[in-house]
Amino acid sequence: MLREQIENFIREDLGYHDISCQMVPDTIAEAVVFAKQDCVVAGVEVAEAIFDYFDIEYTRMVADGEKVQNNDVVFELKAGTVSLLRAERLSLNFLGHLSGIATLTRDCVEAVNQCSEAVVAATRKTTPGIREFEKLAVIAGGGDPHRFNLSDSIMIKDNHRNIMGLENAILKAKEMASFTQKIEAEVESATDAILAARMGVDIVMLDNMTPSEIISTVEKLSHEGLRNKVIVEVSGGINTENLAEYAKTGIVVISMGSLIHKAQWADLSMEMKGYFMP
Amino acid sequence: MLREQIENFIREDLGYHDISCQMVPDTIAEAVVFAKQDCVVAGVEVAEAIFDYFDIEYTRMVADGEKVQNNDVVFELKAGTVSLLRAERLSLNFLGHLSGIATLTRDCVEAVNQCSEAVVAATRKTTPGIREFEKLAVIAGGGDPHRFNLSDSIMIKDNHRNIMGLENAILKAKEMASFTQKIEAEVESATDAILAARMGVDIVMLDNMTPSEIISTVEKLSHEGLRNKVIVEVSGGINTENLAEYAKTGIVVISMGSLIHKAQWADLSMEMKGYFMP
Amino acid sequence: MLREQIENFIREDLGYHDISCQMVPDTIAEAVVFAKQDCVVAGVEVAEAIFDYFDIEYTRMVADGEKVQNNDVVFELKAGTVSLLRAERLSLNFLGHLSGIATLTRDCVEAVNQCSEAVVAATRKTTPGIREFEKLAVIAGGGDPHRFNLSDSIMIKDNHRNIMGLENAILKAKEMASFTQKIEAEVESATDAILAARMGVDIVMLDNMTPSEIISTVEKLSHEGLRNKVIVEVSGGINTENLAEYAKTGIVVISMGSLIHKAQWADLSMEMKGYFMP
Amino acid sequence: MLREQIENFIREDLGYHDISCQMVPDTIAEAVVFAKQDCVVAGVEVAEAIFDYFDIEYTRMVADGEKVQNNDVVFELKAGTVSLLRAERLSLNFLGHLSGIATLTRDCVEAVNQCSEAVVAATRKTTPGIREFEKLAVIAGGGDPHRFNLSDSIMIKDNHRNIMGLENAILKAKEMASFTQKIEAEVESATDAILAARMGVDIVMLDNMTPSEIISTVEKLSHEGLRNKVIVEVSGGINTENLAEYAKTGIVVISMGSLIHKAQWADLSMEMKGYFMP
Amino acid sequence: MLREQIENFIREDLGYHDISCQMVPDTIAEAVVFAKQDCVVAGVEVAEAIFDYFDIEYTRMVADGEKVQNNDVVFELKAGTVSLLRAERLSLNFLGHLSGIATLTRDCVEAVNQCSEAVVAATRKTTPGIREFEKLAVIAGGGDPHRFNLSDSIMIKDNHRNIMGLENAILKAKEMASFTQKIEAEVESATDAILAARMGVDIVMLDNMTPSEIISTVEKLSHEGLRNKVIVEVSGGINTENLAEYAKTGIVVISMGSLIHKAQWADLSMEMKGYFMP
Amino acid sequence: MLREQIENFIREDLGYHDISCQMVPDTIAEAVVFAKQDCVVAGVEVAEAIFDYFDIEYTRMVADGEKVQNNDVVFELKAGTVSLLRAERLSLNFLGHLSGIATLTRDCVEAVNQCSEAVVAATRKTTPGIREFEKLAVIAGGGDPHRFNLSDSIMIKDNHRNIMGLENAILKAKEMASFTQKIEAEVESATDAILAARMGVDIVMLDNMTPSEIISTVEKLSHEGLRNKVIVEVSGGINTENLAEYAKTGIVVISMGSLIHKAQWADLSMEMKGYFMP
Repeated sequence: MLREQIENFIREDLGYHDISCQMVPDTIAEAVVFAKQDCVVAGVEVAEAIFDYFDIEYTRMVADGEKVQNNDVVFELKAGTVSLLRAERLSLNFLGHLSGIATLTRDCVEAVNQCSEAVVAATRKTTPGIREFEKLAVIAGGGDPHRFNLSDSIMIKDNHRNIMGLENAILKAKEMASFTQKIEAEVESATDAILAARMGVDIVMLDNMTPSEIISTVEKLSHEGLRNKVIVEVSGGINTENLAEYAKTGIVVISMGSLIHKAQWADLSMEMKGYFMP
Repeated sequence: MLREQIENFIREDLGYHDISCQMVPDTIAEAVVFAKQDCVVAGVEVAEAIFDYFDIEYTRMVADGEKVQNNDVVFELKAGTVSLLRAERLSLNFLGHLSGIATLTRDCVEAVNQCSEAVVAATRKTTPGIREFEKLAVIAGGGDPHRFNLSDSIMIKDNHRNIMGLENAILKAKEMASFTQKIEAEVESATDAILAARMGVDIVMLDNMTPSEIISTVEKLSHEGLRNKVIVEVSGGINTENLAEYAKTGIVVISMGSLIHKAQWADLSMEMKGYFMP
Repeated sequence: MLREQIENFIREDLGYHDISCQMVPDTIAEAVVFAKQDCVVAGVEVAEAIFDYFDIEYTRMVADGEKVQNNDVVFELKAGTVSLLRAERLSLNFLGHLSGIATLTRDCVEAVNQCSEAVVAATRKTTPGIREFEKLAVIAGGGDPHRFNLSDSIMIKDNHRNIMGLENAILKAKEMASFTQKIEAEVESATDAILAARMGVDIVMLDNMTPSEIISTVEKLSHEGLRNKVIVEVSGGINTENLAEYAKTGIVVISMGSLIHKAQWADLSMEMKGYFMP
Repeated sequence: MLREQIENFIREDLGYHDISCQMVPDTIAEAVVFAKQDCVVAGVEVAEAIFDYFDIEYTRMVADGEKVQNNDVVFELKAGTVSLLRAERLSLNFLGHLSGIATLTRDCVEAVNQCSEAVVAATRKTTPGIREFEKLAVIAGGGDPHRFNLSDSIMIKDNHRNIMGLENAILKAKEMASFTQKIEAEVESATDAILAARMGVDIVMLDNMTPSEIISTVEKLSHEGLRNKVIVEVSGGINTENLAEYAKTGIVVISMGSLIHKAQWADLSMEMKGYFMP
Repeated sequence: MLREQIENFIREDLGYHDISCQMVPDTIAEAVVFAKQDCVVAGVEVAEAIFDYFDIEYTRMVADGEKVQNNDVVFELKAGTVSLLRAERLSLNFLGHLSGIATLTRDCVEAVNQCSEAVVAATRKTTPGIREFEKLAVIAGGGDPHRFNLSDSIMIKDNHRNIMGLENAILKAKEMASFTQKIEAEVESATDAILAARMGVDIVMLDNMTPSEIISTVEKLSHEGLRNKVIVEVSGGINTENLAEYAKTGIVVISMGSLIHKAQWADLSMEMKGYFMP
Repeated sequence: MLREQIENFIREDLGYHDISCQMVPDTIAEAVVFAKQDCVVAGVEVAEAIFDYFDIEYTRMVADGEKVQNNDVVFELKAGTVSLLRAERLSLNFLGHLSGIATLTRDCVEAVNQCSEAVVAATRKTTPGIREFEKLAVIAGGGDPHRFNLSDSIMIKDNHRNIMGLENAILKAKEMASFTQKIEAEVESATDAILAARMGVDIVMLDNMTPSEIISTVEKLSHEGLRNKVIVEVSGGINTENLAEYAKTGIVVISMGSLIHKAQWADLSMEMKGYFMP
């Protein structure tokens, strides 16, 4: 996390004249950040950057991606009381939000792993301003971040097909893409999936298909000898309930915006204890 | 929304070289933003700022705080296809995230309204970087934003009590506060609630009390003639299930971090149609 | 002070290629910042942030709000000569400007204290870009900062009355305000003062009234039983000469833009001494 | 003024959720900015940049540097009421602060002009963050801005002399300076003035000399044939009272930090009138 | 180009008080930007963003990637003289620098095209702060931008091999990579090229090999049946003289840092003509 | 270099999720930055700021402006491998680019020194965003940076002459200039040179004259007794081949945009060695 980002986040939470924190006697205190529920932790490095900013000494007890249980300590802290009060909400807001994403991702990954080796991936449906952190939370949960932004790889979506047709879109993408980039085509039919695969896209994304449509499409790709030449991804309407059904279809990637937009914060808290006069 | 903010959000989503949007023929197109579920809309002005940035003509069909139903149109748009593709995800991410918060807030407000005139309020548990927008979503949902940052009003919390004692904390707050600011004290017992009210704080927040403890505390305040001298707020452990119970306790404000951290995005989408060569 | 702010201020004073400071041999030197007149010091923490940026060791001899006399030392410094030369003007500009405000504020506060317990407060008439520092200087002088910005509390001013009428404005403000915010109404007559107080605003500001009009208005508020339900503030045309007259009217707050916009800088200087080869 | 600067100033004055301005019905209104005292106006272009930002139509009645009298109109405005309320304080803060500097500068310039052709110049004693605007106000008042920052020209000051001696400092400055830059040496004695002029500095600044010492030093420079080879500047302890005495000494530049740090704001105000429903 | 970027570039060129441009009578003028040498133009959109910022009307005569000859007009402009003077150097600095890169790239691409279908690609050796524009210049010249930053695709370089061994590095990269990313391994021997290709990297980069070593390595890859499973890139020591030799080796990508770091600016100029009083 | 600048440069090179550097085991390593060709080094302080940012210990073996030979070490480094990989490209991009400019400048300075004491100077033809660093590279090479931006000194160029005439332009410049600024006039004829010198400009720049025209103009200035009253600069069409001819004309300054826009990067590299487990 860049210092400029931290300062923007701090300014948002502190405002211009924070009496609330300033009014306490500035003694040295110890504190712990701990979980108030079972969860997969994410955001540990973000929290450390915040602690560093406020000159808070910390011992990290858990790394991103580790499971903790209710009452487990995530950080032991030591610093002036004013610094601790100022770092408290911002660090917890990150830890809570990101651990919530990591926890939901882990649930999905584990559900998939029971029946498949498919990868669970995020999308660009992320909270504006903190995408990089939410993607890291998905990784902490065992998921794949998918592309970070529109420039990372080229994706042909429904609007591209509507405007210029799938074939033209793929031709144009291949013409414009760097050799370092993958090209992905979102399709809604087996015919288009075969067309895209045959034209050499790296990833075919089956959009809003039912599990049986997916199975049928994968079979057709196999029949055409294209199954191993392309990564097959599915997306659309997949949730924790029906995830297993999709996982069993033999595809390689399941992308779910809900990893982020349906995640609820994990509950973490900071508790101060032991005050020493400076 | 400041232009500098918009540019940061856009940079996050576009990256350094966005072929995905650029590759389409840049014709003029019409599009609609519409709801794919019933929800309370929020973020309309944020979306407009994004559309303005991309020189997209828009007609707003719905204002912040209005309920829409599945398939209702929120915006009618007209612009170049490249601009539409670039504005799509960012505007939807805001609309989806903020409408989710507004929808959950409205649910809570309506539940409370059935049995009370209490206000439903947010907290500082917000996603870093976009607090101002999330607070506006709470307002759109009918809730109270509570303070925007630590400088807005002075709040004495558990850590203050632990460090310096409630009485000292209130004295210090009154000494340091501007006459334009309210002082709020979070307490965990009726005794402390009475002490705080007697010392003249503007708001007493009963933290983590059960409904019956709250009722008892309110009665004690009344008995001491302090009931009308202080705003009584409750917080802690309140969710959509038990909300009504709290609403019936006669308090004035129910603050719930969950308005934001348990909200799930509303589902909105953009559909392009009608392409005209430039 | 955020590092980003410091860097902007430094860039302003140094430009792109500062030979003036660079050309001296970079030995270690000692220096003092001292007062060249009696004054109340403000800006000490701002200066420290600047010294920290330039890796200057400092001993603070005086805290914000303390009175110093001509020749009193405010800081003892030790650092490389180049750093001292670079920090000199910026730190003195802050100390001089802010101590000037603190000194004028203290004069006003002491004048008021001789005949009243009224609070002396600033306004939003501040130098663009450094309001937070000027408000802190008012606090150092013993004054009240009043609201830091338009979002801090709601103030109904003459233009609001003109556009929508006082009563409508108060109704609207009460509808829109968070329970954490105070509402202030600026009025020009006793009738309006009574109306505002009766409608429950927290602060009534009597604008541009003479002392005798103020006394009369306060009496009418008492007569209506509203005197203790509202904070009475006066503003407009108050200066160091007539301040005492206003202080004696029994109001609670006297706000004066002139604390900032009529303040003249206090005279402080930096003197280097004792150079040691590195 | 850059848009990024404007947005920072606006953010400072508006905060995160400005109900005060938002609560009025957003009709179209006319307004005037007018003077409440005689003064020299400065900051007109800054105000225009702010009006542009808020889409306010304006007619400028006065240019920077023009004298206005009490009640003279500086701007006629037309815009939505919300925009006018939001632009009001920020534009007035600039106009008041800068016109105050221009007015004091003009007073000094006129006092000097009665007995001399000397130039009145500012220094680097400026309010952090807005130096460029304060320098423009000095220009509007008829003064010379002097260097904008440490990189503009090279100035050898007392600390340079103390550290490395005047002769060495001049040698070093001449070695390091670009041919596009002037070199200025601050001296405290006629001997040093002659040394500096002989070594070829462009400007000699006589620091803290009495008028008679200045006259004597200028004569010595003439005697050495150096009078026309160097610009003679005086500074230190010059104020509106003794300015004429210094002006008569035959020097070319009188620099006064007090143009800025002793200036008091001019009184300007905005008045709205005529509301039309949108 | 984001407005914030433009403002930073403008601030760099204008400084705090630009008399040079301001001093001309601000009449409306026409101007042309024209080439003073044959070159491939790049930076046209960057220039347009600058013209837009200064409210300059422009007609673009040439698009990025087109060849122009000495005296060809690139832009016809119409605006106030002050705006034209302010936009002149910044727009020309971009056009000159970027067209220089495009021209050198085009030379290399044409040299390669005479004997091969290989792609000419840039590297991360770019001027800090303007990589995105330099990469676009490479594209304008007909080259491939290669990855824009370290996050775009994963590249295993000599230091990775030294630290963890090629095999471990590839295993780690495959474990950490998103399915949307390509993995590239830089190798110095045919053995390593075969290892990397067999392990499934997408791109093998043969570093600092002679043309005959490259030919031999490609043959060995073919012999192992790996030739079509991997993109073969060469880099290191390739310049305009020996480029053809490399192009004939049958590889697919030739990457050359020199496209950017050996490019010299193309010579473009702005000429004003026809002044009309405003 | 300001921290904000460093962070912008780092963000450009790292992107949002840099696996490439992160994937190595983070042991402590030693490394050297060394030259792969003879060159004059520049950018050492920039590199140090980058190393500081990444907590890399460094020993500087060479200062800006020193000549190094192929294989000479510029920095010895010690740090974690991840930090070294992240700092590598950015520091080398600066060192390579700036050392290239310093090397070309030194070549020109040495060529001039063989026949003249003339100064070699840069222009405003610099790469947008890093002018301050490129100017420092010119200084490291022994050249003069000329003005850093339009505000540094006033320069009357061809477009000024065309718009308002040379005489008017000089009058206007003298009216508007601060006494701390020099005025430079670019002319194309001896007549104009004499006019400008007689009117008191500080620098006359002979634009695009042949060596013999320059000699003739200098003689005419001497004949008019103006030769010692003005700095004579030449510019336009001067390159490494014809530089000596210009140097012999007796002028004082030769300014060449090509110092920067024709410079090619010097070749420097970083080599890691010696890994120690943390």
